[in-house]
Amino acid sequence: MHKNIKNIEKLVFGRGSFNGIDGIIENKRKENNHFFLFIVDNYFKGKELAGKIPSRPEDVIRFIDVDPYEPTTEQIDSLRDEILNSKGLPSGVVGIGGGSIMDIAKAVSLMFTNEGSSTLYQGLNLIKKPGIYHLGVPTISGTGAEVSTTAVLTGPVKKLGLKCEWTVFDQVILDPELIATVPTDKWFYTGMDTYIHCIESETGTLNNAFSHAYAEQSLKLCREIFLGDDAGQTPDNDDKLMVASLMGGLSLTYSEVGVCHALSYGLSKILGAKHCLANCIAFQHLEDFYGEGLNEFRQMIKKHNITLPKNLSKDWTEEQITAMAEVAYNLPHMWHHAMGENWKDKISVENIKELYKRM
Amino acid sequence: MHKNIKNIEKLVFGRGSFNGIDGIIENKRKENNHFFLFIVDNYFKGKELAGKIPSRPEDVIRFIDVDPYEPTTEQIDSLRDEILNSKGLPSGVVGIGGGSIMDIAKAVSLMFTNEGSSTLYQGLNLIKKPGIYHLGVPTISGTGAEVSTTAVLTGPVKKLGLKCEWTVFDQVILDPELIATVPTDKWFYTGMDTYIHCIESETGTLNNAFSHAYAEQSLKLCREIFLGDDAGQTPDNDDKLMVASLMGGLSLTYSEVGVCHALSYGLSKILGAKHCLANCIAFQHLEDFYGEGLNEFRQMIKKHNITLPKNLSKDWTEEQITAMAEVAYNLPHMWHHAMGENWKDKISVENIKELYKRM
Repeated sequence: MHKNIKNIEKLVFGRGSFNGIDGIIENKRKENNHFFLFIVDNYFKGKELAGKIPSRPEDVIRFIDVDPYEPTTEQIDSLRDEILNSKGLPSGVVGIGGGSIMDIAKAVSLMFTNEGSSTLYQGLNLIKKPGIYHLGVPTISGTGAEVSTTAVLTGPVKKLGLKCEWTVFDQVILDPELIATVPTDKWFYTGMDTYIHCIESETGTLNNAFSHAYAEQSLKLCREIFLGDDAGQTPDNDDKLMVASLMGGLSLTYSEVGVCHALSYGLSKILGAKHCLANCIAFQHLEDFYGEGLNEFRQMIKKHNITLPKNLSKDWTEEQITAMAEVAYNLPHMWHHAMGENWKDKISVENIKELYKRM
Repeated sequence: MHKNIKNIEKLVFGRGSFNGIDGIIENKRKENNHFFLFIVDNYFKGKELAGKIPSRPEDVIRFIDVDPYEPTTEQIDSLRDEILNSKGLPSGVVGIGGGSIMDIAKAVSLMFTNEGSSTLYQGLNLIKKPGIYHLGVPTISGTGAEVSTTAVLTGPVKKLGLKCEWTVFDQVILDPELIATVPTDKWFYTGMDTYIHCIESETGTLNNAFSHAYAEQSLKLCREIFLGDDAGQTPDNDDKLMVASLMGGLSLTYSEVGVCHALSYGLSKILGAKHCLANCIAFQHLEDFYGEGLNEFRQMIKKHNITLPKNLSKDWTEEQITAMAEVAYNLPHMWHHAMGENWKDKISVENIKELYKRM
């Protein structure tokens, strides 16, 4: 079966393009209850960017701290209920931030029009109605959340996305100026999410000429950004990272992620580890699966003096390790892609536990 | 100003993906007068592909020979009038063919809902209403028409596109199996349209990290397809050319084409030359503008034993040459991109006439 993928509806790219946001949303203000909901990473509270948000008196700006945990179903439901009860249905949602803010904006835009808890809709094509207009403005690049067809949420039972064609943003603004101030550790971990997306997309049964072309170019950009003579956080590399993130996201969308993301989901669900760091923690031990990519990853780690957490598993209980392995095992599409149709003959919960014990 | 570009709404890629078309359009059949208009390159009449078109008794299949001339405003208007008068408003339009068929499908989908002649709408954002659902199935790759925001038409006064966000396809099916039987000369000329798109997109003031990343990957694919050890019309290269065409189209959309396309438009408008061949005829004489690209182009010509028409200008009247130069000069966005803001200080109708006289 070939994937028929919904694109971002409209996309603008360029330094300073964020300044055009007021004109872009103006026409949408006629819809619903004539106000916009801006969801902004708490990092920008009081900073210059916050002052550039074209909010009007009727709008709601909500600063959200995404550091303590990944977006949850409960968080989406209560945000939705609170806005609906106080002001009714917004004209649209604008998310300004990283992957977590992108996912919150996408999820809440869907939940404004779909009744009940978001836990009901975790999975593929369970959403019943299109959401309201939603616009994404990434301020940190790498997760590909700006282009993906899913909004990943951690619920009481599963860490799984609201995944359907209506999840995709109606508009994305890619303004590389907005990622200039990302702290170096986050810049690295989030950039590595793109790198790992491409390695996983390429190394598996679903890879094809389309996903390959996107991964190949995204990897080329990652190499320039993280390994080249001009590596590091420069304006040119910020430009490149924004494009690499988009292309990596498109690559995995037409192919699939693999072993690293499966393990990473276990770390996040059971221990609350942040996605991009969790990927790096898992990836460093996956030489059995991604040997070449891992060599390059280690060069990047070295070049940027990154110290990844190690020997974590000595503090984990056997129960926690089993629980993580079960979360990871229950992502069959990732294992199928990484190891082929008969993946169950090749990997078991016990094997996965061994992988966690390396960490 | 940053370009805010409408994407193809949904895109499927893969060998055999054309077989899923019936399922893709099924839901759309409820709309309007419950029939589809299939516009198919006459080349496929009686061939296997024609038998795979999922048409129902109420549908209209129109085979069109695009060899004699590029799509015209008159052709679009009369096709629209004929269908509306006989069967009313279709549920959607499916175009199966090359760039000309893509442009006809896009243009007629708009003209079904916009009154009067298509000559009224040649230009940017002149279209008043969204068109009907339209789906593109390229059977020859290179023009980028499958992704572009314009439907180029030759009218009594100008060769200019219906250009707006509603022009873009609602759905594209990229099935590389469909381009396997393209005759070698057309394969080459149309592939070179992609190559030239990238060279022109890269060489100009509007180039940026986004258009560059797309051009860079598209050029890499072109080099593999036309110059690599495995160059030629192979299944792998068909896969690659389909992706290269899309990426080249995206590159120029976020940047711009340049001198070659300006000259090519003159050749097509005044002499009726086909677009992709006209590009090649012009490009071979543009060492002043695209020296490096031209060297590589000549290697490709040589490798595939292509003989381009030369010494054509000896048969052209001074009047024809002047007319072509005026058509070319009146594409200011292309000259601006290629030569900078003060392009009028650098090039004149007289200079352009000299370029035509080289051909």
